[in-house]
Amino acid sequence: MYSFVQDDDTYVVSIDNHQEVVAALAAFCEEMGIKAGEVSGIGAVNQATLRFLDPATKKYVDKTFEEQMEISSLVGNISEKDGKPYLHLHANFGRRDYTVIGGHLLCCTLNGACELVVKKFDCKVGRRFDPETGLNLYEF
Amino acid sequence: MYSFVQDDDTYVVSIDNHQEVVAALAAFCEEMGIKAGEVSGIGAVNQATLRFLDPATKKYVDKTFEEQMEISSLVGNISEKDGKPYLHLHANFGRRDYTVIGGHLLCCTLNGACELVVKKFDCKVGRRFDPETGLNLYEF
Amino acid sequence: MYSFVQDDDTYVVSIDNHQEVVAALAAFCEEMGIKAGEVSGIGAVNQATLRFLDPATKKYVDKTFEEQMEISSLVGNISEKDGKPYLHLHANFGRRDYTVIGGHLLCCTLNGACELVVKKFDCKVGRRFDPETGLNLYEF
Repeated sequence: MYSFVQDDDTYVVSIDNHQEVVAALAAFCEEMGIKAGEVSGIGAVNQATLRFLDPATKKYVDKTFEEQMEISSLVGNISEKDGKPYLHLHANFGRRDYTVIGGHLLCCTLNGACELVVKKFDCKVGRRFDPETGLNLYEF
Repeated sequence: MYSFVQDDDTYVVSIDNHQEVVAALAAFCEEMGIKAGEVSGIGAVNQATLRFLDPATKKYVDKTFEEQMEISSLVGNISEKDGKPYLHLHANFGRRDYTVIGGHLLCCTLNGACELVVKKFDCKVGRRFDPETGLNLYEF
Repeated sequence: MYSFVQDDDTYVVSIDNHQEVVAALAAFCEEMGIKAGEVSGIGAVNQATLRFLDPATKKYVDKTFEEQMEISSLVGNISEKDGKPYLHLHANFGRRDYTVIGGHLLCCTLNGACELVVKKFDCKVGRRFDPETGLNLYEF
């Protein structure tokens, strides 16, 4: 599902081809016991689902793009919710015509490579559901 | 205005909802005495102003977008100018239709969450105005 | 070609104006002996070439954009191939109308400033050509 090398609390992670990136990264964090940290990286996918939260209605609008795209940036963080690693990832994707789509990343399927850097933090970063915004917010 | 937890020189920062992100981050750096470092993160806003510098005229062109958008990436750095923390931030924003706008970030108003990682560097990173480019450039 | 300051294994790097960023960064990594690490940063360019790999044909499609653009994000990594630093960089560029293009960065010519953070990792991150995907993949 993934392979990695480690320099102290920094992990160079390669997700295996054709894997769903968010699930693979969650499995990695679970295996390594990472409950606080950050993620950044690049890659290429042939499917990605982005989620847009309309704050007026507090409804999520998900859209899946089925096409080859570069992950032109993936930035996010790792926290802990209900005792498990919780990923919050945003991504930009460069399309075949080089225009870019992006937002909150729900999932994406790797087609090519996905090279991430994960840094583990030695501090407690929790999450709690906030009914006012409809979001899972940080809880320090 | 913000809350945070700390792991040595790394800060996990949450900006309070409805705050202007650049001002809140500048206040954070001032409070913590961070005069060199880097910033990355994600979030959601309902207003953002981007600045485009036309190098031919050395004139700034600012444009404000008043709509709900995801911060699909925020990347930038902290240096010191005139004895104060100086922020240089660029951002990408994912719109309701998932297309992305981006560039030099002047300001943006949080609507949802804004989760940043700030790293403090133990080296001197200054800024000076450069008349040739019309930019405040690094001074090492 | 560039200047920098250093905090242990973290380098704050400024590429000189009008330089080609990828070549300058490769020269920096070579000079500093950085064979594993990560790169992130921002800047402004007046030329950029993006490369799209069509996995069906395994053919690269390169496109050069000749216009002033902000580097709204640059994210990438450093590994080692054939004994030399190997850069894998993706970038997003904000155009004059604030729309964004992005993908795999082949080269870009600085016009303004380019401010990068490079982190050196103390672990071995190799690269090998993979005929199945047509990519140079990580080899741990």
